[in-house]
Amino acid sequence: MAGNVFGNLFRISTFGESHGVALGVVIDGCPPGIVLDLEFMQAEMARRKPGQSKIVTQRQEGDAFEILSGVYEGRTTGTPIGIIIRNEDQKSKDYNHLLDAYRPSHADFTYDQKYGFRDHRGGGRSSARETAARVIAGSIAKQFLNQFGITIQAYVQAVGDIRVHKHYSELALDTIEDNIVRCPDQEIATQMIDRIAEIKKQGDTIGGVIACVIKNTPAGIGEPVFDKLHAELGKAMLSINAAKGFEYGSGFEGTTMLGSQHNDIFETNAEGKIVTRTNHSGGIQGGISNGMDIYFNVAFKPVATILRPQESVNNAGDAVIVEGKGRHDPCVLPRAVPIVEAMAALVLADYILLQKSYAV
Amino acid sequence: MAGNVFGNLFRISTFGESHGVALGVVIDGCPPGIVLDLEFMQAEMARRKPGQSKIVTQRQEGDAFEILSGVYEGRTTGTPIGIIIRNEDQKSKDYNHLLDAYRPSHADFTYDQKYGFRDHRGGGRSSARETAARVIAGSIAKQFLNQFGITIQAYVQAVGDIRVHKHYSELALDTIEDNIVRCPDQEIATQMIDRIAEIKKQGDTIGGVIACVIKNTPAGIGEPVFDKLHAELGKAMLSINAAKGFEYGSGFEGTTMLGSQHNDIFETNAEGKIVTRTNHSGGIQGGISNGMDIYFNVAFKPVATILRPQESVNNAGDAVIVEGKGRHDPCVLPRAVPIVEAMAALVLADYILLQKSYAV
Amino acid sequence: MAGNVFGNLFRISTFGESHGVALGVVIDGCPPGIVLDLEFMQAEMARRKPGQSKIVTQRQEGDAFEILSGVYEGRTTGTPIGIIIRNEDQKSKDYNHLLDAYRPSHADFTYDQKYGFRDHRGGGRSSARETAARVIAGSIAKQFLNQFGITIQAYVQAVGDIRVHKHYSELALDTIEDNIVRCPDQEIATQMIDRIAEIKKQGDTIGGVIACVIKNTPAGIGEPVFDKLHAELGKAMLSINAAKGFEYGSGFEGTTMLGSQHNDIFETNAEGKIVTRTNHSGGIQGGISNGMDIYFNVAFKPVATILRPQESVNNAGDAVIVEGKGRHDPCVLPRAVPIVEAMAALVLADYILLQKSYAV
Amino acid sequence: MAGNVFGNLFRISTFGESHGVALGVVIDGCPPGIVLDLEFMQAEMARRKPGQSKIVTQRQEGDAFEILSGVYEGRTTGTPIGIIIRNEDQKSKDYNHLLDAYRPSHADFTYDQKYGFRDHRGGGRSSARETAARVIAGSIAKQFLNQFGITIQAYVQAVGDIRVHKHYSELALDTIEDNIVRCPDQEIATQMIDRIAEIKKQGDTIGGVIACVIKNTPAGIGEPVFDKLHAELGKAMLSINAAKGFEYGSGFEGTTMLGSQHNDIFETNAEGKIVTRTNHSGGIQGGISNGMDIYFNVAFKPVATILRPQESVNNAGDAVIVEGKGRHDPCVLPRAVPIVEAMAALVLADYILLQKSYAV
Repeated sequence: MAGNVFGNLFRISTFGESHGVALGVVIDGCPPGIVLDLEFMQAEMARRKPGQSKIVTQRQEGDAFEILSGVYEGRTTGTPIGIIIRNEDQKSKDYNHLLDAYRPSHADFTYDQKYGFRDHRGGGRSSARETAARVIAGSIAKQFLNQFGITIQAYVQAVGDIRVHKHYSELALDTIEDNIVRCPDQEIATQMIDRIAEIKKQGDTIGGVIACVIKNTPAGIGEPVFDKLHAELGKAMLSINAAKGFEYGSGFEGTTMLGSQHNDIFETNAEGKIVTRTNHSGGIQGGISNGMDIYFNVAFKPVATILRPQESVNNAGDAVIVEGKGRHDPCVLPRAVPIVEAMAALVLADYILLQKSYAV
Repeated sequence: MAGNVFGNLFRISTFGESHGVALGVVIDGCPPGIVLDLEFMQAEMARRKPGQSKIVTQRQEGDAFEILSGVYEGRTTGTPIGIIIRNEDQKSKDYNHLLDAYRPSHADFTYDQKYGFRDHRGGGRSSARETAARVIAGSIAKQFLNQFGITIQAYVQAVGDIRVHKHYSELALDTIEDNIVRCPDQEIATQMIDRIAEIKKQGDTIGGVIACVIKNTPAGIGEPVFDKLHAELGKAMLSINAAKGFEYGSGFEGTTMLGSQHNDIFETNAEGKIVTRTNHSGGIQGGISNGMDIYFNVAFKPVATILRPQESVNNAGDAVIVEGKGRHDPCVLPRAVPIVEAMAALVLADYILLQKSYAV
Repeated sequence: MAGNVFGNLFRISTFGESHGVALGVVIDGCPPGIVLDLEFMQAEMARRKPGQSKIVTQRQEGDAFEILSGVYEGRTTGTPIGIIIRNEDQKSKDYNHLLDAYRPSHADFTYDQKYGFRDHRGGGRSSARETAARVIAGSIAKQFLNQFGITIQAYVQAVGDIRVHKHYSELALDTIEDNIVRCPDQEIATQMIDRIAEIKKQGDTIGGVIACVIKNTPAGIGEPVFDKLHAELGKAMLSINAAKGFEYGSGFEGTTMLGSQHNDIFETNAEGKIVTRTNHSGGIQGGISNGMDIYFNVAFKPVATILRPQESVNNAGDAVIVEGKGRHDPCVLPRAVPIVEAMAALVLADYILLQKSYAV
Repeated sequence: MAGNVFGNLFRISTFGESHGVALGVVIDGCPPGIVLDLEFMQAEMARRKPGQSKIVTQRQEGDAFEILSGVYEGRTTGTPIGIIIRNEDQKSKDYNHLLDAYRPSHADFTYDQKYGFRDHRGGGRSSARETAARVIAGSIAKQFLNQFGITIQAYVQAVGDIRVHKHYSELALDTIEDNIVRCPDQEIATQMIDRIAEIKKQGDTIGGVIACVIKNTPAGIGEPVFDKLHAELGKAMLSINAAKGFEYGSGFEGTTMLGSQHNDIFETNAEGKIVTRTNHSGGIQGGISNGMDIYFNVAFKPVATILRPQESVNNAGDAVIVEGKGRHDPCVLPRAVPIVEAMAALVLADYILLQKSYAV
């Protein structure tokens, strides 16, 4: 209820502040017998890690995780998996000048309003540091999904107004990791990187859009009417720091189409499988997967911390000037790619377990 | 878990198929002592009702509701409120030709994949008829929110590419109900109505966008990190039939802004209250309300049922031609306005109760 | 959260006051494809019904149920099953003298403390009338359990100090329904009936114990550590009106045994199945079923409404005399037998779905 | 769903195996601003700790806890509190002979049936070691309850057939900790201690009963109809390892009383407060607290591990002899006292938050 638990059957409970002792996650409901690939898990963490390239924050967060329970001789046991990630490079002093000040478009003011006070160091619980727990949990969900052949691939579709215009099916998704901005269109990628570098030099920040494609989801996954698959995916994505919007399939553009254009015609393919000729539905109809690719976009606003002086007030309501210190991301997109994938994996794992329970 | 329950503390459980005996809702967790205005509730139902104007379906659904429990001498008692709405104008025969056929972009195929079979009449549980239960529940949530002064107003912002370009603050929101398309820009409204009438004549359908504005939410509402206020609003909206996207505050457009443009500067207003100079945050920061207006958009695809022959397959995978019969909406937007408001009210009511529980 | 929802995957939401319009239940998560036997369901209702014999209340409650949704052509569809039972024989005037008075050991005072006021007629939501919704839901759960061969049989083990001393395995459980008190020991049954008749004549009431035996539960059902199978059964039973205690397997008596006496020795039986030689564990070890019979007892206090004058206070705290009017049960046990079975069926159905979701 | 989460608003999620790296708990929903007394928390852990006296296991478990999050400058922040307790004195080799064998009346067999395999060392997740996480979480719940003046005191009422016959109100509850068995009747305590010592010498074990008294709960706490306060307390208690039964108020003995004897007469006391003359209700009526003392008993079976050879089978179904090695409790009761209190505290904290949310 208090907002730090996600999922029904594959359920995670996360904890930890940016500048506290550690953050972590408990996964309750992970099926037994999954052989965990620790190198894969560490690699996933590395994709999210600060300092991985010149266009992200140079902060050096510890991202070594320790599995405390729920795994025996390399396999999940079905009991809860507790994992912690200790905080290391805490430059808490960078935040002392912010003790009472409300940083614009951060959660400082709202946390104070909600809880009466807050751990102001590094954003505390509202820091993007929290997403490390999501990524490590998601890396286990991905390994569960492997056995169904389900793959999840996210990439940066837009940075500011620099945008990939090709459809995902025209892109080489296996080249996403070939550049530091995680965009499979290598030309656009170069433009994006230059743009971010330029923005960074200005002490400013920029937003963008991440696209995500999920392949091989069996038909029948999703729970009507409130827990439609795309509704849960939407919630999962909107829960990521800085997310401002979600659309799936034809999305906002689809609103300008006519029904006769938008409808996906069913047909039986050469293998005798029922498929749709087009996929404006984004692989989900009536909230339930139809076996086609699931795809969606997530909008991210520009990072709130800029390295320029900004007007604001403190908790007494008095005018102050705040100026970002420390090391911050000029653009959250490259590091948000694995987070989007992790949240998608958690939703899929959960909904597959739900469907297994009812299936005859 | 099975998808028909929404909310945590203010929790609804809905049931009912389009052509079954009745549909209904149980509200568990509605606080005691709310004096219910039955006329208001019936008026809310009338806003969603088929047959209300020439641009919506001419189907004549019963929308008389019966309160079975939880209300005594006109006041809520704190015990569950059971409400049913009987189905009346069921032209089930209109659907007999669809017994085995899969209507394009409907949930026929996915329901069969999920459950093994389905009640095919009128879409069964996947019918938009289901939203009647949401509206009646939402009308009670609205009355709970009244005591906090919270108001929720949705309107049609776009039909196809006909779009209101003014910001909500420039519109007379009290004129939303002055035209049958529910758009507060009367000129644009006329264009929308003409466009829908034209589309209807063609036997086709069209999508659009609904905007929603929530005023007077106190600061501090919303649960980090997974249950952020906008994440739950997003899920609520995406759970509405035909919804394809959700954005709040600056939304997808905000992704092209720089941090220095996007950040909302805090200041203390004449009444000594801390406010923001701009509101790109859409009234929510870090997932928690900051006291400013909350506003968001919801994208709706064109209605899937068109009155034209379409190719498809039946459940044996054989090619068939399906053609919409009966009476259908050429555009779902005008009737979706009260549904958007209802879902927003349910989220707000639930989250206010959550905050009350923790508040010191 | 507000207490009217039970279960995780097989989840029921009940509503309705004793003297309101109707009571009912929504079952969300019932698997699709179960062919419902309506006669069986009505027969279950008849076992709980007032007026069924001379030793229960002579009130004539309507117990005709109406299925509103979730069933199509005789089979469950997987969508929520809504069922209502209208109230009929409401002698609300019998309660007018109790408008402000607090009946001893009833929920009048506590409801007022919790909600600020209450529907005083017939106990409102706290009336045993509420259990009708449990029985009808349980009758569907039982039909789901049929496909696993699971049977649930409860019987009256004690009325006051008249007690069946035989172990359940020595009793002919198929004779439970052969007498009106629902005790499979026909001699003891006669004594119980006489005792209840005598107590009734005195205008007094009496308590007792119900025993329940569940056969053929597969091994592996139950969720450690908080949701142990016996913990959930215990909660389910303790939620029944007038329940004061729960014990399973060796129960309270087992506390006086030594470990060397109490331990159930494993052995492999003639069919090659691992079984236990004794069953002090009551079929549950570490919170998980081991394939042996599950058995437990539930203690019920004497009914609070007696047909004698009793001292009390009203809501102003002033002394008053209350005297039970109307028609009441001298002993709740005979009618509680199907309620105990229903709650056990709901727990089992839910936990089997949980186990299905994780099972490899 | 998978059984390792307890509570609704004050919610804990526990993890950890007996011989794994660590165990721990995440508390989500603890209200902000509680000043934590770390010494009190360590003292609570010490009450549960092995090796604390001659009548408990001499195992030397680490019980130093580390708070990882949710506490800033000594106060809870409202964000999740993560706590871990590392395992130390792991004599895993003591369990190697049990790799395939099923210890009688342990969870070895059922875990294998449920999950397909298990961490056999020290009982893994089914070990009583798991309760350390409950005690540390409960110690925080107790500090939350302090502000309402609520106190929770458990004590050993019976060891085998040695029993305290006095009512709790006749006992000096502040002397519970004066002896190592935690019984406030010092004479009976001596008999209990002697009995346990004797049983221990025999390599056997013995069960017993713990009583618990909760004072100063305000009236109005508890959720009808399924989540009655005593039903949730019952579930909480039955979830403790080795628990076999629960009764509250008059309990099983109350079943032999007549209504005229059992009913608790309301009266207004000298302070003008409505109270009951007797308290057979155990402070709970209709599932809701009435302001009187809440009291209940929990039955515990004898510990399953005995230091004697026992017949059993292994996972192939072959006959084996198992013999407890290592250091085990001859009687679980003295160390279960703080666990009973912890679980009661967690229920009360959760239900007080629930009531706060609805209260007008």
